[in-house]
Amino acid sequence: METPLGETPQALVAHPDNAIVWHEDRLFLLDQRALPAEIRFLACQTAAETAHAIKAMVVRGAPAIGVTAAYGVVLSVRDHFQRTPADWRPGVEQDLELLAAARPTAINLFWALERMRRLLAALDQLDPVPALLIEAERIHRDDIAANRTMGDLGAALISARTDVITHCNAGALATGGYGTALGVVRSAHAAGKIGRVYADETRPWMQGARLTAWELQQSGIAVTVQADNVAASLMARGGIGWVIVGSDRIAANGDVCNKIGTYMLAVLARHHGVRFMVAAPTSTIDLAVASGSEIPIEERTADEVLSCGGTRLGPEGVDAHNPVFDVTPAELVDVIVTERGVIEQPTAEKIAALME
Amino acid sequence: METPLGETPQALVAHPDNAIVWHEDRLFLLDQRALPAEIRFLACQTAAETAHAIKAMVVRGAPAIGVTAAYGVVLSVRDHFQRTPADWRPGVEQDLELLAAARPTAINLFWALERMRRLLAALDQLDPVPALLIEAERIHRDDIAANRTMGDLGAALISARTDVITHCNAGALATGGYGTALGVVRSAHAAGKIGRVYADETRPWMQGARLTAWELQQSGIAVTVQADNVAASLMARGGIGWVIVGSDRIAANGDVCNKIGTYMLAVLARHHGVRFMVAAPTSTIDLAVASGSEIPIEERTADEVLSCGGTRLGPEGVDAHNPVFDVTPAELVDVIVTERGVIEQPTAEKIAALME
Repeated sequence: METPLGETPQALVAHPDNAIVWHEDRLFLLDQRALPAEIRFLACQTAAETAHAIKAMVVRGAPAIGVTAAYGVVLSVRDHFQRTPADWRPGVEQDLELLAAARPTAINLFWALERMRRLLAALDQLDPVPALLIEAERIHRDDIAANRTMGDLGAALISARTDVITHCNAGALATGGYGTALGVVRSAHAAGKIGRVYADETRPWMQGARLTAWELQQSGIAVTVQADNVAASLMARGGIGWVIVGSDRIAANGDVCNKIGTYMLAVLARHHGVRFMVAAPTSTIDLAVASGSEIPIEERTADEVLSCGGTRLGPEGVDAHNPVFDVTPAELVDVIVTERGVIEQPTAEKIAALME
Repeated sequence: METPLGETPQALVAHPDNAIVWHEDRLFLLDQRALPAEIRFLACQTAAETAHAIKAMVVRGAPAIGVTAAYGVVLSVRDHFQRTPADWRPGVEQDLELLAAARPTAINLFWALERMRRLLAALDQLDPVPALLIEAERIHRDDIAANRTMGDLGAALISARTDVITHCNAGALATGGYGTALGVVRSAHAAGKIGRVYADETRPWMQGARLTAWELQQSGIAVTVQADNVAASLMARGGIGWVIVGSDRIAANGDVCNKIGTYMLAVLARHHGVRFMVAAPTSTIDLAVASGSEIPIEERTADEVLSCGGTRLGPEGVDAHNPVFDVTPAELVDVIVTERGVIEQPTAEKIAALME
């Protein structure tokens, strides 16, 4: 199990950009279940602890899960190489399975594991750990760089100062740092283009109310939290130019899988003439799934819906369904922003061309 | 202040149809803030206590507020007549103001007060209380009868067995008894036309997760609770024939004001070819407002959004907005069901004809 830190080292300060920190040979995760009420880092020393942290949503957000899993592979290899230097690979294989099974929907998890797996196959050093750590850190650093590029590309699409709506948390906390959707917001805000961000609270985990609100507050960007059922009337009132969200997996045809409620926003945005932007690195694009209907949608426990803030609200014996993601068809997406460029009105052809 | 009951009298059993009970010269309200975790009745002995109970949402739902306010007038008159039998009217006038100020959006409150006020003006008995109590009980009984009629009329519109979505609580708890939207669901269920009811949890007050789930469970109707952001993907999946909701005020042109999120559902329903039904007694129709834009929308405290289940979730110092109602334009409403009849594709002309 992860163990809470006693004292916080200097490298671990409470900041959204510190969601994932490799420090003194351990993986530290800023516990997103407790934010913002409590700032605590959990230290992972094994792949099993890392997989558990992903499953339990200590860390969440597609790119962040990918980065975390990459470090998890480093922990796995170190563990097994120390214990059985002559035969460490079978144990690592098991850990790779464990990490891959932690959550089903975000493709970045599998993408990062695949990248680590390729390096593993090519390795023949006596000690495989240093090269793998370098690769995990590169995945981490590349993700931040991609987010900064997307920030610039996305901000350039916003022509005039406007209020925006975002959903869930696609910020620094959901990524290696800086954020995807919130990276665009940060860059656009720096360019004077953002009035106010309306953050959907995003039931049942409240990533918007807890994480996005905290991140934007830390960044000095005006934020207003709202229940998920408010966006429609806010759009009808006017003043919202864009909905900006991240993604957990984009199909080959441009269908966008993201946090439950994203599809709702896309339908509402189209109805109200609000533009709909998805910001996601190319590691989120899964050419192996032709359309969104093929993406496995995680279903979590009914208790997450029937309770809130640690209090049971619904009656005992009542059912709830709790799909964690939904799929927005490509035709409702105005633009996908990636680190390789921008795709307006996404189609399979445009995505294939981008990924070549 | 209202006082919790010591022992529960026989007349006060825990049932959704007992939201408002006049018992032994007191007004008992089933405390809807605590349901379903705790069953407690609050006793009101004065108009001030009644107004406070409405404001604090011990009782909520447009028709229920109206019925409650009518009893509040009885309490007021009894109080002032006992204290100053020769000059009780000025005190009652003040209480009428107090009751009218309890909540701004639901027209049924003003409708019920106006009905009591008309009787007050006509009264010349020595003791005005008995006649007023008869009138309050008639308002109460008429509301239940209207709901049963609407139940039949609404159920007749549902041609084949289907799953439905409802929002907030427009059930027995929100009315004198039986319910508006849930009255239709009850009648349709009795006719074998309802598969399952998907109850939006309805943030921030969770009327769906707490009250609708409890009511339907009590009625033996299959119910699944969902976060408010799920309805869109549920509609896309198929199997939802109708959205059925209540209303707090219907404008002369057919615009429907109801719980925040109703407008969202109406847009989503139209996008997915799902039909949209509003069930509301004619006491909800306000011919004095030409369109929905003239209806005052109550805004409640940000704390209701930034907290849930008694726990603060959003960061300190962050803003939230908390509009309690929204307006669905008449063109998105397929049918309004009242006790006087059904209006398909509502227009000002059709509503005027109904109200003649």
